[in-house]
Amino acid sequence: MKPVIIGLLGLGTVGGGTVQVLKRNAAEITRRAGREIRIGLASSRNLERVRPLDLDGIRLVADPFQLVTDPEVDIVVELMGGIEPARELVMRALDAGKHVVTANKMLIALHGNEIFAKAQERGLMVAFEAAVAGGIPIIKALREGLAGNQVEWLAGIINGTCNFILTEMREKGRDFADVLKEAQVLGYAEADPTFDVGGIDAAHKLTILASIAFGIPLQFDKVSIEGIADIEAVDVGYAEALGYRIKLLGIARRSRAGIELRVHPTLIPERRLLANVNGVMNAVVVKGDAVGPTLYYGAGAGAEPTASSVVADLVDVARALTADPENRVPHLAFQASAIADIPVLARQDITSAYYLRLLAEDRPGVLADVTRILADQAISIEAILQKEARAGETRLPIILLTQPVRENDMDTAIRHIESLAAIHGPIRRIRVETLN
Amino acid sequence: MKPVIIGLLGLGTVGGGTVQVLKRNAAEITRRAGREIRIGLASSRNLERVRPLDLDGIRLVADPFQLVTDPEVDIVVELMGGIEPARELVMRALDAGKHVVTANKMLIALHGNEIFAKAQERGLMVAFEAAVAGGIPIIKALREGLAGNQVEWLAGIINGTCNFILTEMREKGRDFADVLKEAQVLGYAEADPTFDVGGIDAAHKLTILASIAFGIPLQFDKVSIEGIADIEAVDVGYAEALGYRIKLLGIARRSRAGIELRVHPTLIPERRLLANVNGVMNAVVVKGDAVGPTLYYGAGAGAEPTASSVVADLVDVARALTADPENRVPHLAFQASAIADIPVLARQDITSAYYLRLLAEDRPGVLADVTRILADQAISIEAILQKEARAGETRLPIILLTQPVRENDMDTAIRHIESLAAIHGPIRRIRVETLN
Repeated sequence: MKPVIIGLLGLGTVGGGTVQVLKRNAAEITRRAGREIRIGLASSRNLERVRPLDLDGIRLVADPFQLVTDPEVDIVVELMGGIEPARELVMRALDAGKHVVTANKMLIALHGNEIFAKAQERGLMVAFEAAVAGGIPIIKALREGLAGNQVEWLAGIINGTCNFILTEMREKGRDFADVLKEAQVLGYAEADPTFDVGGIDAAHKLTILASIAFGIPLQFDKVSIEGIADIEAVDVGYAEALGYRIKLLGIARRSRAGIELRVHPTLIPERRLLANVNGVMNAVVVKGDAVGPTLYYGAGAGAEPTASSVVADLVDVARALTADPENRVPHLAFQASAIADIPVLARQDITSAYYLRLLAEDRPGVLADVTRILADQAISIEAILQKEARAGETRLPIILLTQPVRENDMDTAIRHIESLAAIHGPIRRIRVETLN
Repeated sequence: MKPVIIGLLGLGTVGGGTVQVLKRNAAEITRRAGREIRIGLASSRNLERVRPLDLDGIRLVADPFQLVTDPEVDIVVELMGGIEPARELVMRALDAGKHVVTANKMLIALHGNEIFAKAQERGLMVAFEAAVAGGIPIIKALREGLAGNQVEWLAGIINGTCNFILTEMREKGRDFADVLKEAQVLGYAEADPTFDVGGIDAAHKLTILASIAFGIPLQFDKVSIEGIADIEAVDVGYAEALGYRIKLLGIARRSRAGIELRVHPTLIPERRLLANVNGVMNAVVVKGDAVGPTLYYGAGAGAEPTASSVVADLVDVARALTADPENRVPHLAFQASAIADIPVLARQDITSAYYLRLLAEDRPGVLADVTRILADQAISIEAILQKEARAGETRLPIILLTQPVRENDMDTAIRHIESLAAIHGPIRRIRVETLN
């Protein structure tokens, strides 16, 4: 069969990894795909970063807009990141009749609906395995491997920076700010860490996972997002004492009332595999009605792990080039005509259990006041952790684990507890999920 | 699109699960596949077991040989298990131009080469996701999701019965025979448990995984197999004291010398996710050169988890019905013409680290004799665990962990150690893998 020719946009970390993997494993990939997959053209904003790469046989093109319409190109691979000009280039590539492979989670989460609509209209493929959880083939698993299931929920560690920070905080008792600084030095966190530690990057990925799990449109703006910047070393310690670990999770769940989309720090029981996913690694648990819980683990970022997913997409797209579009795997797992606009729940209507940390006066009756307020909101208590006061201490932390509660009721209870004279400062609240 | 009609062979556990899942999730499956997937015909050796199922709309056929050639059938689903008549029926189905989906690991491991050859010749698909690790989409992950990688090794907990037994032994300090009896009562183990506890079932699955990882023919007869029947509670305890857990693993590894195919009890460091896969659950770690280590976890057996994989295969096959055969995913991941007969190493040439348990006279010089024999075979010691003798004891267990050693050299060393007058009874040897 004739070789498939790639036009590569972006020669940074992931672009460079893709060049390397396609060259090093060319024989293995051809043995699988039944044809050669070759980078014919490449463009990069920053040609100085390109030098250490072996670009032998690749024609460098200064203008990316020229690359995406070049008649030699079969598939455009977009590895530039960011919205513009990536969005414009992908749309132009589709206009020019090119299939697209991308690792750009922000682009898919924010503009996937329009991109897929155009691809659908033109009978083209847009593949994006590398956009979620790096090298883990989670898009394929969800979209094809679990196609017989109604997905009940999924929960994932899908931001390596946050997982590295939380792992260091737990293993070494260090503070958030301290570990963040180290992560920046190590290159695990950007100079502006907001996207990672604020939960936005995880929310982009969750948006994509939820769409292909439930067959709903991409809707990033409906994700409830909370980052890890407020997690303190003491909370990590108390969680551990109660048999839990704190992880930043992206969670999507279908209930009778609608769909929950949320990213937040979460206490999970330490015996769960997900609780034992450490450092920069990623993992996603998917619960299907037939298969039960399944878990997928691997490197969530990095040049070659991400390239692994880009190449897998290239092999898939190469195989389906001649297929009737209606027989291809749909972009969002469900046929475009079957995408359903199931309502997404507002934050106030989400139900989850809670970890609460209060700073209370050390005197009789305070705990009784707190538990009465919770009872008034029909919130049941699962566990209480209260240390004896040491000499000279007049204020004591009280740790509570609650049963699942509607967010709105918890808001009310916390407002009332914080208004008690014997309670000092804001209450720290972190969600708890048993992942049953 | 017109419905895809299934002819179902076997209405036992997995067959019944498949009927249930296809009915319950019919709407969801159609939303994904873009067409209805419907069981038109079914046959079963044991029609009495069929009664509790809702077989409305399914035509029961007494003769399975009639079913596989029925003109209404698009895809034959073989869920009978065993070799005959399953093999003959699958070959007849292919002769009649039917695609095949099967959950039959033994059939694929032992007769896959001839089955795939005929399918290839006729331009037909044979899908077998359910044959390995039940509901975990590991075949898809390996064959498609990691298509950009050279697979370096894989290691899996792929027999739920053995994992249940070893988990109970560790958690409750129980003996093998005792737990096996319970597993039989619970239905986790067959009346004749040889296939499971002897490692044969795991070897069937490993045979399949190794073929699609490396692009080699199926060759069950070259797997080195060792079961768990000799594992004693004391070994589980000593392993734990050293920071390890014992799991029955199927391991396939590519080295310069050739390919290792082996199933055996294995000590693995307790911090590995794989060491924390408990009860009847399965998990497979795959190490690719680009992606690094990835792990896939889920239910390895059971009616609906296995049906989940059968249905995923049905959706895949339905999509590829009209595809040019050369553009379909090859049966063994690599193009049939690219399957390479890479040599498989004999047991004696495999290299791995070892746990050794010796019963020694409690007197000076014995340990020196043992370590000298190991040194003579160039075997380095990683750790020694030796308990103080209690009053009245004259024999003491010595536990050794070695560095990796060629099996042949370990055989020699053990022969020499067992011939020492101060060493009693046979030496217990269990392999150790760090899974780095």
